[in-house]
Amino acid sequence: MPGRFRIYFVSSNEHKFREIKLVLMEYNISAIRRKADLKEIQSLDLEDIAREKAFSAHEIVKKSIIVEDAGLFIDALGGFPGPYSSFVQQTIGCEGILTLLRNKLSRKATFKSALVCADRNGKLLTFLGGVTGTISQDLCGDHGFGFDPIFIPDGHRDTYALMLDAEKNLISHRAIATRKFADWFLKRQRTKE
Amino acid sequence: MPGRFRIYFVSSNEHKFREIKLVLMEYNISAIRRKADLKEIQSLDLEDIAREKAFSAHEIVKKSIIVEDAGLFIDALGGFPGPYSSFVQQTIGCEGILTLLRNKLSRKATFKSALVCADRNGKLLTFLGGVTGTISQDLCGDHGFGFDPIFIPDGHRDTYALMLDAEKNLISHRAIATRKFADWFLKRQRTKE
Repeated sequence: MPGRFRIYFVSSNEHKFREIKLVLMEYNISAIRRKADLKEIQSLDLEDIAREKAFSAHEIVKKSIIVEDAGLFIDALGGFPGPYSSFVQQTIGCEGILTLLRNKLSRKATFKSALVCADRNGKLLTFLGGVTGTISQDLCGDHGFGFDPIFIPDGHRDTYALMLDAEKNLISHRAIATRKFADWFLKRQRTKE
Repeated sequence: MPGRFRIYFVSSNEHKFREIKLVLMEYNISAIRRKADLKEIQSLDLEDIAREKAFSAHEIVKKSIIVEDAGLFIDALGGFPGPYSSFVQQTIGCEGILTLLRNKLSRKATFKSALVCADRNGKLLTFLGGVTGTISQDLCGDHGFGFDPIFIPDGHRDTYALMLDAEKNLISHRAIATRKFADWFLKRQRTKE
């Protein structure tokens, strides 16, 4: 059954879309995916990157849209790979991160998400989510994507990649940001009615 | 003695400016530094990044300008750190690169430079330079910046960081791109006269 409300999610990442779509279904919001070749800026600030991307996405789609950017910030590596997680994943991968942490005392890390909504008029709103955790000793699990096989959220024994989408969505950085957005979105729809 | 011709170099990197200024002096071209907070795009292509930056710099300065972007592309790391060399340098640094290469058979790498000139009307021209080499076993040398202490250009025994600016300028990726630009620039001035 399609949700009562609709929002366009602009991304080339199928995994992200699936996670966000699942969360929004709980709120009766249908996420519709739009692919677009969006230029991303280089910045140490996830929010900056996501806001610029939302601006570009809105210029193309001309409707209410959301975009999302995420990054893994590892304490002992000065915040690396941070906003460049996707590039780092494609080059040195999870194995590279484990190599870099081999002699480090701390394995603490934070997975952050910045979800930005551009409304019909292009006004931007940002919703942030963050989850602290540790980097595992080895790769573990096949679900998810990116650094999911090496991130163990605090209070859990499993990596993100050992969790099904529905499980990850109960706790993840992306789900936190998405729920904040959904709450705001539904409230706004109600005031319109 | 000031050079006969002038060009604005837009950058926040003092080291780059000094290297480029020195090369251009040989051609009787004065490089004048302009600082500007330019947004960089995320791309795997140095040339794309530099062209977007040149476009933004010209919008601000409204004169003939040059910008330069460089990256170290390491074969065994799938091109990492590539266009994100500056961020990687600030987080995991040269030590991080050495750690990542510890068990790799190949230490081959290419240092690339993309220098883009925007002329008075904003028309963009790109000049590329590249130098192949190997990553050293240890950090070596105090000169230069970035990954200079771990890059040994082919045909040499020393890292970039063991060379003075004037020595590095005889062979470096940045100098190659800068000389290509200088040749073009002088030729254009001559046809104007």
